[in-house]
Amino acid sequence: MKDSAAKCRAAGPPGPEPAEPPCAPARRGTARSGRTRDAIVDLAIGLFNARGTSAVTTNHIAAELGISPGNLYYHFRNKEEIVRAAYGRFGEECRALLETPVTGGAAEILRHYTAGTFDLMLRWRFFYEDTAELCRRDPDLAGDMADLQRRFVAHLAATLGRLRRTGIVSEEVADLDLRLLADNIWLVSRGFWEFARNGAPEGFRPEEAIRDGVRHIFALTRPYLTPPARQALDRSLARDGG
Amino acid sequence: MKDSAAKCRAAGPPGPEPAEPPCAPARRGTARSGRTRDAIVDLAIGLFNARGTSAVTTNHIAAELGISPGNLYYHFRNKEEIVRAAYGRFGEECRALLETPVTGGAAEILRHYTAGTFDLMLRWRFFYEDTAELCRRDPDLAGDMADLQRRFVAHLAATLGRLRRTGIVSEEVADLDLRLLADNIWLVSRGFWEFARNGAPEGFRPEEAIRDGVRHIFALTRPYLTPPARQALDRSLARDGG
Repeated sequence: MKDSAAKCRAAGPPGPEPAEPPCAPARRGTARSGRTRDAIVDLAIGLFNARGTSAVTTNHIAAELGISPGNLYYHFRNKEEIVRAAYGRFGEECRALLETPVTGGAAEILRHYTAGTFDLMLRWRFFYEDTAELCRRDPDLAGDMADLQRRFVAHLAATLGRLRRTGIVSEEVADLDLRLLADNIWLVSRGFWEFARNGAPEGFRPEEAIRDGVRHIFALTRPYLTPPARQALDRSLARDGG
Repeated sequence: MKDSAAKCRAAGPPGPEPAEPPCAPARRGTARSGRTRDAIVDLAIGLFNARGTSAVTTNHIAAELGISPGNLYYHFRNKEEIVRAAYGRFGEECRALLETPVTGGAAEILRHYTAGTFDLMLRWRFFYEDTAELCRRDPDLAGDMADLQRRFVAHLAATLGRLRRTGIVSEEVADLDLRLLADNIWLVSRGFWEFARNGAPEGFRPEEAIRDGVRHIFALTRPYLTPPARQALDRSLARDGG
């Protein structure tokens, strides 16, 4: 209730868009209002990625979109609310990546997660690059990000456990080692983008970075595989160059 | 020359400290001036770590130190110059970590680098957390950070090569695999701090995070060791709890 009242106070003149009073909650859900809201988030994501979140203000976003600051405030009380709306979309994409069923051997499964994670990093760069700053500004977002990490790592560990039952990961690998491997896969994926950019002062090429990232994840996992699965991984690497 | 002239223009009233004219380069090196300069950097490091670099201004630093903004500008033209001075110190500590001779087996050597890296991360948090933002604001710093990563990884790869010659890393491990392992050790160390904090919503304990980080680096390296070196690593882990 308090939040909603504050939102109303902060809303200001709604600008060119809504004819209805700015604090009529029933009107919030209209198609037109939803479209403006989505357009604000779309544009903000582009600006956050290009300039970093701390350099972008709500005024920049409104100006680039050609709407009044008041119209923007009608939809979002401040930049943190826009970031959280963006995080909602990002979270859905992460869930989709985790929930897509993947069949095949270690190579197919590792490629699915690695390429999927790198694709997320490319399109949602600012969440990966500005984590500390975003979390300082919004403790709830910090909680959501931590939660995503835990779910992702738990999912990876469960996937590795499944691969052990199906003879792809060696049955001698203990549960603790599977957990450490899942953590390390997350850590290497999570840091690889920045690492690859730093490692390519003469010019960063995303496609090459993705191939190199896959190679690093394969190298990490290879020692835990059964001999046939290891050979299949090597064949996949030789065929697709990473 | 241009930079130095701009520094003079920006210097303003030097505040309580120097009696000499603010643009007399010969006086820059006095012991007293050096002490103020060091005190500014010391205090800035603490504030950057506590609040994040983007939330700290030169005015905050001057106010906390009890000097006038003009006095601060006498030493540093802007926040970026303070960050670069801090980076100079950080770089020296990194060099010291790399150049300290370490003897012993894989456990001693991995512990040295892992504990050393985590210690750096604890004391220089803002360089690890605000990398993207700092690099956007100062391309020269971005170059220095990239250079540090390349030197660190090359040093790790050379150390692993030495361990292969002395029978600690298995001689079957190819050069490419050693390079991938060195990269992965860097990536896991580099990301571990944030990872451990996210993984401990009930309260983050640095000592425990360091022990857990060592366990992750050991797990990463273990498959590449010769059987006796692997046993020594396991004994070290059992003895010291990671």
